[in-house]
Amino acid sequence: MIRIGILGYGNLGRGIELAVNANDDMEVVGVFTRRDPASVKPYGENVAVWPAADLAVHTGDIDVLMLAGGSATDLPEQTPAAALLYNVVDSFDTHANIPAHFAAVDEAARETGHVAVISAGWDPGMFSVARLYANAVLPDGADYTFWGRGVSQGHSDAIRRVPGVVDARQYTVPVPAALEAVRAGENPQLTTRQKHTRECYVVAEEGADLAAIEKAIVEMPNYFADYDTTVTFISQDELDRDHAGIPHGGSVIRTGRTGVDGANGHVIEYSLKLDSNPEFTGSVLVACARAAWRMAGEGMVGAKTVFDIPPACLSATDDAQLRATML
Amino acid sequence: MIRIGILGYGNLGRGIELAVNANDDMEVVGVFTRRDPASVKPYGENVAVWPAADLAVHTGDIDVLMLAGGSATDLPEQTPAAALLYNVVDSFDTHANIPAHFAAVDEAARETGHVAVISAGWDPGMFSVARLYANAVLPDGADYTFWGRGVSQGHSDAIRRVPGVVDARQYTVPVPAALEAVRAGENPQLTTRQKHTRECYVVAEEGADLAAIEKAIVEMPNYFADYDTTVTFISQDELDRDHAGIPHGGSVIRTGRTGVDGANGHVIEYSLKLDSNPEFTGSVLVACARAAWRMAGEGMVGAKTVFDIPPACLSATDDAQLRATML
Repeated sequence: MIRIGILGYGNLGRGIELAVNANDDMEVVGVFTRRDPASVKPYGENVAVWPAADLAVHTGDIDVLMLAGGSATDLPEQTPAAALLYNVVDSFDTHANIPAHFAAVDEAARETGHVAVISAGWDPGMFSVARLYANAVLPDGADYTFWGRGVSQGHSDAIRRVPGVVDARQYTVPVPAALEAVRAGENPQLTTRQKHTRECYVVAEEGADLAAIEKAIVEMPNYFADYDTTVTFISQDELDRDHAGIPHGGSVIRTGRTGVDGANGHVIEYSLKLDSNPEFTGSVLVACARAAWRMAGEGMVGAKTVFDIPPACLSATDDAQLRATML
Repeated sequence: MIRIGILGYGNLGRGIELAVNANDDMEVVGVFTRRDPASVKPYGENVAVWPAADLAVHTGDIDVLMLAGGSATDLPEQTPAAALLYNVVDSFDTHANIPAHFAAVDEAARETGHVAVISAGWDPGMFSVARLYANAVLPDGADYTFWGRGVSQGHSDAIRRVPGVVDARQYTVPVPAALEAVRAGENPQLTTRQKHTRECYVVAEEGADLAAIEKAIVEMPNYFADYDTTVTFISQDELDRDHAGIPHGGSVIRTGRTGVDGANGHVIEYSLKLDSNPEFTGSVLVACARAAWRMAGEGMVGAKTVFDIPPACLSATDDAQLRATML
């Protein structure tokens, strides 16, 4: 059994615990939290809850530590520090900062002989792998990534910071005509506005100036100004009833040409439709934890990404069985 | 430059040559053929044409030999023999015989210190990888593979063997309702007949008994009896005009559940829409040839499949650049 620890027990931490439970070759032994440990209740009765400050105490109890913190402030500090103590997996998803994060984690992991898989999940993660395979196979082509329909936590948070807003849920939605044009191999040049729309469901304070709230949202730079954004005001009850889930998904598409004078066109598409973003992300991270443990067992060290993991390494099934049943 | 040799110069061999030409880090140096070498004209002016009997003569000229023969009789003999001389890549696609083929090739490759990637292409190949990732991530789920709309060479050949038939083209077509039910997460149990239909375009001899031909086709065991099959008689001119291409494709779908009592459903789909089956297959094989060469350079030996290849190994782009641009 691969013994798993989890650092952070929010939506993603819970998704990780549930994903570990779905696999027979691993178990969660403990959760590290910055909150009062007495206030944290894991699903598993035998799962310990430890203060995050005790991270260095349990190196003998854990084979792979899975980091469930956020990319803005948690992981840039936590992952290099944790990689000094454990084999680790994180879901660092600030694409522009991946090279710097990789370098920092790689140095720590090499110093102490650990394997550290960074930026796992679905984007970065499974979507990245889809992009890489498609590019390796079709060097002459164009890439498209569409996200949604799904909840963007960052955009929902941004709406909640608008004065007069009590609560909000933001959905990112691909523009159907854009998706169809890409799938048809038309290779369209698409602006930000042409690729996605943003749907906002907003609970306002009683008596708030709804027109002012709507204007503040749709004109918000970086978050909404470059998109066609719709704002729908609803009650807290409606929000809780109709928008409690955290669905997401999307499509990675590469179109390309082969042959004499590029005579033949091809479309490769990888798509996800997820009822629960944190549970699916946790499921990917758990497969990567298995790979981290295997790679460490083979003597590898340093930071790794999904690009470096042989697919068989992610699976609990042995190689001969995989070839017989899945190839 | 990775120096590529090709054994066999039919549709797939030509697809391989064109795919190599689309990549800057490799070149085709020669083609081995069982035909009269004078009758074989590669696209590249500087590509040598050698008799297949001279396979052992050119070990100093070639880094990776790519096998473009058929799985029924060519590859079971050719791949183990070639793996004694070269790093090789093949597209062996008789799923049931993969374990035996792997064992035979592995023994030869280990004996002489080569890397031999077998069963590359899109199914087995990219579809296999899609199945493996999806199964590793969602252990609680169901797999579906749909093929088409595309030309099945084997089924077209079977029709041509029916008395009175001059020429034929067979398309495998997924049943739209089945695809939709799977994509909707309904987890249907589907019979062979419910998943695919078969469309046959047939050129008959003048005066042939068309009813007898149609009956012979739709009742043919293994090939057509288990499917809803339509037979359309057309002229040779129509066949040449409307059915000259070799398109194919399909979808690998895994649906699965996560969370407390499997509360959340997820759908993972990988799909291909290919204008030219041999050119796309050749493109996958070429990416695998790059990986074979790299793995050999790292001291690995033996038979490998796409399951064993770290994705980054397939790409001409270096690891740091991949992380910065594609993760």
